[in-house]
Amino acid sequence: MIRLLGIDPGLRFTGWGVIEVDGNRLRHVADGVLATEGDAPVPNRLRVLHDGLIALIETHRPAEAAVEETYVNRNGASTLKLGYARGVALLAPALAGLPVAEYGAMAVKRAVVGTGAATKDQVEMMVRRLLPGASIRRADASDALAVAICHAHHRATAAHVAQGRRMA
Amino acid sequence: MIRLLGIDPGLRFTGWGVIEVDGNRLRHVADGVLATEGDAPVPNRLRVLHDGLIALIETHRPAEAAVEETYVNRNGASTLKLGYARGVALLAPALAGLPVAEYGAMAVKRAVVGTGAATKDQVEMMVRRLLPGASIRRADASDALAVAICHAHHRATAAHVAQGRRMA
Repeated sequence: MIRLLGIDPGLRFTGWGVIEVDGNRLRHVADGVLATEGDAPVPNRLRVLHDGLIALIETHRPAEAAVEETYVNRNGASTLKLGYARGVALLAPALAGLPVAEYGAMAVKRAVVGTGAATKDQVEMMVRRLLPGASIRRADASDALAVAICHAHHRATAAHVAQGRRMA
Repeated sequence: MIRLLGIDPGLRFTGWGVIEVDGNRLRHVADGVLATEGDAPVPNRLRVLHDGLIALIETHRPAEAAVEETYVNRNGASTLKLGYARGVALLAPALAGLPVAEYGAMAVKRAVVGTGAATKDQVEMMVRRLLPGASIRRADASDALAVAICHAHHRATAAHVAQGRRMA
């Protein structure tokens, strides 16, 4: 059994979700959203995200983390802000000594819904079905749980591949 | 007398410089570059930058920090990487409780050379003239010292303005 932390980073809202994986079985542990004030100085907002992530890693003790790759087809200023939040989201688990995996939105949708063309609503519906008990007060938390589920699938596949190699 | 930390963030190389300001007089304290390995995982590279910044803040005890605003007219992937490094550069002094100012490249050039159209070489030449003893092994360190000098000027102006207001 292993605990995984999923993070969907954003400067305004960073979603997070913790799941437990036992073989093929998934269990919801906790989820939520870290919010920062839009009119506060950026360094302070990054500190809020950082302190929040460090605190929830200490509380839930995940063994690995997975971060959703940010969408980059935006204007430079928006991309830069996403970069700040994503940098902080990649840093916090690294500081806690966790391995950090990254998955693009397509890979996450494919792992959760079965198609990379899934809508936000389809992803959230499947996350609720796969993880009864998830609170998901905002879509960001659903996306964070989805990236954790995606990481659970890829870990399992990687383990099978490794086992296959050992047996070959 | 106050110590200022300047940072020129980048994922591959983050320049830093510490200066001392006493009225109109500037003194070089230290400068350098934090380098990360291009083929290492991004979370590990961000940790190297973060740990390096935290360590030099503990060593040199600056009272304020200034970060150069990243150039955003690039492709999305490059901007995102700059965002990671800049997020970490804004976070570290905030975690240490320092006020963090941000200056665009034009403002920095104007403060150091007198014109926003100055070349990199002109900036470095003026930094060496204003701060005898600076090592500046890479241009990133020169840019970091330049943003610290820029902050020194803007602090002084802000103080004059505040004093003028108090006297009015």
